[in-house]
Amino acid sequence: MTVYGVLGTGTVGRALAGALAANGGEVRMGTRDVAATRARTEPERPGLPSFAEWLASNDAVHLTTFADAIVGADVLVNATSGMTSLDILAAAGADALDGKILIDIANPLDFSTGELRLTVAIDDSLGETIQRAYPGLRVVKALNMVTAAVMVDPRSVAGGEHTAFIAGNDDEAKAVVGELLRSFGWRDIQDLGDITAARGMEAYLVLWLRGMQTLGTPMFNVKLVR
Amino acid sequence: MTVYGVLGTGTVGRALAGALAANGGEVRMGTRDVAATRARTEPERPGLPSFAEWLASNDAVHLTTFADAIVGADVLVNATSGMTSLDILAAAGADALDGKILIDIANPLDFSTGELRLTVAIDDSLGETIQRAYPGLRVVKALNMVTAAVMVDPRSVAGGEHTAFIAGNDDEAKAVVGELLRSFGWRDIQDLGDITAARGMEAYLVLWLRGMQTLGTPMFNVKLVR
Repeated sequence: MTVYGVLGTGTVGRALAGALAANGGEVRMGTRDVAATRARTEPERPGLPSFAEWLASNDAVHLTTFADAIVGADVLVNATSGMTSLDILAAAGADALDGKILIDIANPLDFSTGELRLTVAIDDSLGETIQRAYPGLRVVKALNMVTAAVMVDPRSVAGGEHTAFIAGNDDEAKAVVGELLRSFGWRDIQDLGDITAARGMEAYLVLWLRGMQTLGTPMFNVKLVR
Repeated sequence: MTVYGVLGTGTVGRALAGALAANGGEVRMGTRDVAATRARTEPERPGLPSFAEWLASNDAVHLTTFADAIVGADVLVNATSGMTSLDILAAAGADALDGKILIDIANPLDFSTGELRLTVAIDDSLGETIQRAYPGLRVVKALNMVTAAVMVDPRSVAGGEHTAFIAGNDDEAKAVVGELLRSFGWRDIQDLGDITAARGMEAYLVLWLRGMQTLGTPMFNVKLVR
């Protein structure tokens, strides 16, 4: 059985951990301070259950440290905020990452100024930064272009008639991620080639954020047509 | 009758000038050096007619200087390369631009290094730069997200089932541009709000360029679905 290490306990981490557990996977969810995360009994946003409540209703998800989630997993999911991804991966060290698949969902957005801003773009990307830092890690950029709910349930938008873009240097890793996406309901998966395609996938966030603002909902995506 | 001033004689300028003339508009096409442009009798690319040949078969298009094309027109089309757009608009001066609509199709791509690169992005855009330089000009960002052939014939891709994004500060100008796009066959037009949305529309080019490379054709677009 595949063991998944989901890094991050926010909306994206919860969506992925829940969906992977529902698929029958073993899921270790990594966080910085396990006790502090468990103690989060207040909802972070109206309508969103508290982390403690969410964890209680997802008993196949095992909460642990970042390092432990990485060491014990076959496939990692980077659901951290992009600004912290490299620090978090460093917690386990390069040896623990060697040969593993990392599904990089994060976007290098700086939330500190109030206005979301990409911190790397055009000539570089977070996906490439992670791949350069850990050459033995098999990074696959995926799912960063849609909101958490759509990542794991693409049918929730237009009956699933839209596109998931993926990119990475390792074809076998992309095949594994492609299968995983199909298990979530994605039918149209567009491989954009090597990890440098993460530049375009992350730059798209500037358009996505404006789309969300204009449409008044994050429940949308684009379908590639030709 | 609306007089259009198409700035630029490349593939985009020709596509727009041809389509606007076919719509019954009067079209002035601006270039830096009229005699030199007329003298271009060699095809620039295999399969593409020379400029002289193209002009001969589009007799409703009147070739003139940038300044003259701007002064005499009601609606301007910025089909220049993005790096030169500001210089070209300066040729006619701010008074000539005041109150006019400019459809800004250009992308701020630097072609000089061999690898296409956005020169402004994330925090700014070419659309905004032009709007700031000429506050009286009514800039509408449009059509920069597809190849020239698709701009004026959206049905050439997926029967026209895809989206044209537009942005600008002036609702009346956007309505005029929306009508024009519909006359080309666009059915799904998404207004993204004020001109700052040009950031996302231009940043998308990074994804578009990779898509073209991967698909091996520029004849594609995205459809916004929700």
